[in-house]
Amino acid sequence: MRSIVWSNNCLTLLNQTLLPTRLEYIECHDWQRVAEAIRRLEVRGAPAIGAAAAFALVLGAGELTELAMPEFKEKVTQIASVLRQTRPTAVNLFWAIGRMLTVLDQMAGNTDTNAAITALEQAAIAIAEKDRAVNEKMAVHGASLFTKPTAVLTHCNAGALATVAIGTALGVVCKAWEQGNITQVFADETRPLLQGARLTAWELMQAGIPVTLITDNMAGWVMKNNMVQAVIVGADRIALNGDVANKIGTYSVAVLAKEHGIPFYVAAPSSTFDFTINSGADIPIEERCATEVTSLGGNCVAPQGVNVFNPAFDVTPNNLVAAIITEYGILRTPYSQAISQLVKQCK
Amino acid sequence: MRSIVWSNNCLTLLNQTLLPTRLEYIECHDWQRVAEAIRRLEVRGAPAIGAAAAFALVLGAGELTELAMPEFKEKVTQIASVLRQTRPTAVNLFWAIGRMLTVLDQMAGNTDTNAAITALEQAAIAIAEKDRAVNEKMAVHGASLFTKPTAVLTHCNAGALATVAIGTALGVVCKAWEQGNITQVFADETRPLLQGARLTAWELMQAGIPVTLITDNMAGWVMKNNMVQAVIVGADRIALNGDVANKIGTYSVAVLAKEHGIPFYVAAPSSTFDFTINSGADIPIEERCATEVTSLGGNCVAPQGVNVFNPAFDVTPNNLVAAIITEYGILRTPYSQAISQLVKQCK
Repeated sequence: MRSIVWSNNCLTLLNQTLLPTRLEYIECHDWQRVAEAIRRLEVRGAPAIGAAAAFALVLGAGELTELAMPEFKEKVTQIASVLRQTRPTAVNLFWAIGRMLTVLDQMAGNTDTNAAITALEQAAIAIAEKDRAVNEKMAVHGASLFTKPTAVLTHCNAGALATVAIGTALGVVCKAWEQGNITQVFADETRPLLQGARLTAWELMQAGIPVTLITDNMAGWVMKNNMVQAVIVGADRIALNGDVANKIGTYSVAVLAKEHGIPFYVAAPSSTFDFTINSGADIPIEERCATEVTSLGGNCVAPQGVNVFNPAFDVTPNNLVAAIITEYGILRTPYSQAISQLVKQCK
Repeated sequence: MRSIVWSNNCLTLLNQTLLPTRLEYIECHDWQRVAEAIRRLEVRGAPAIGAAAAFALVLGAGELTELAMPEFKEKVTQIASVLRQTRPTAVNLFWAIGRMLTVLDQMAGNTDTNAAITALEQAAIAIAEKDRAVNEKMAVHGASLFTKPTAVLTHCNAGALATVAIGTALGVVCKAWEQGNITQVFADETRPLLQGARLTAWELMQAGIPVTLITDNMAGWVMKNNMVQAVIVGADRIALNGDVANKIGTYSVAVLAKEHGIPFYVAAPSSTFDFTINSGADIPIEERCATEVTSLGGNCVAPQGVNVFNPAFDVTPNNLVAAIITEYGILRTPYSQAISQLVKQCK
């Protein structure tokens, strides 16, 4: 199962809003459809959004072959600006677009826009390929944290669907499972959009890993009853001090893990780190529409007109994080120091 | 709006499973229909369940007028046994049935079953009337905890719908609101059955109290952002040491409140205390069917056949509880001592 496939100038996305009841693909032939897919969460997960946006730029550039290089570059940059605005929190989106614009800059002296398009396509493919390699390295590093049979809890979906390859947090889980060190996974359903119920539970069942679905408010009780020994989640953006933005509810899970003496692990590639911000206070938190909370599958589950607060993400402070698993290895507190080191490795 | 009305040998229940989209009443003319309503959660909330079960016994007794007193008593006791098995966690159910059987015992010397039925009906009415008076007293005591404008968070529904009168936790909120000391209420939606979204938000909107609906996993983030200054919930059973069984998710909210230095209050009448158990470890936790988690309003939201853990309640240990509001006043730690005193007052 692949969530993102690039072939013949078409980006095929597995429509994640319809899972697990329907397995449908969206064929994107223009960049606007990809932007829409990101906004609607048809493609989601920080690394997957980054790769999708890179391919969207390739599609956009492909429509501009008639233009001379200066106009071509200007138009592609405009498309990049629109793509940047599709989701505000996940930094991989900005990272991938930044990479693509760097490639564009390097081609600016060239007058052949077709050569620029080819270079952009190669860059987008490289971003996707890199995600695959990075996932595999993270899985290997992360699995080393599990040295005996362990039941883990996860929140939202940081699996194959969220990335181009085997996933961040779930990639680690899969590797540790292969090594005999996962007994089962408790999946928080993750309201409002139920990525845990719809995607994580589904992915784990497909992989043959025992999974138990719970509502988000059961996580504390599961910990209290010693039913899990570790928590592992993905991330949408990590600050220089190690503060972690991730799906709403992650912060509560981290506090509960602390209360129960359970390690709280984050698995995220270096592209999820934002080296320009010092702490989580600088991370913009996307607020989404009320209907995500008040309705479900078209059914209204709350009174008409009720006031709703619907932040899509929250920030877990670094002191609640036992370790951050990256493709370069495992980061531990003090995170400022570990992340300074990471900055150097990424250059 | 009354959730339970007794009139002319008919118990009318507001069907809480259909709110807020449909306002429908169920007319129960026999005890079996009441038992079904309790099982299906058409009537819910610890005090309301107690009152409903008492009236169910009156309906059951009313069908047995042909019998001689010994058989009458035996049959009524059998009905009581069935009613006791409708829900395992809320103690008010057992408390109310116990009260009714005591009345039955007192009438056992009498040969006139009609007199016994009248006595049972009066006892059931007294249970409902007592709930009304108790709610009012709790509201007055509880409101004294709010001495300045405060935003509160609540979980599940402990309002008029859960009781015969104005509610336990929400009764306190209403009274404190009248006194100008509530700025707004954050209502956890309370998965899986969404009592917060469907019932609490609706009740507060009807009462004109500002309410903001959130998913359960947002409670920690709301606290982290200083958006609430107190938590108040109801209870289904309280042990002698002050451990509190309440709707699943309450324990997580209590841990989060502790992390943020926010007081966690419980409002519960003395009938919610189980004077026979020393701690929360002795409280049976009802587990309900998987479909409550895997579907919503008939829509499947999880993969077919996924394993589910669905406890309906959890236990919050006494050390996380800042105060328990009862009709006799406010209990504080050490709870064993405060509850010993309560036992004497209840005699």
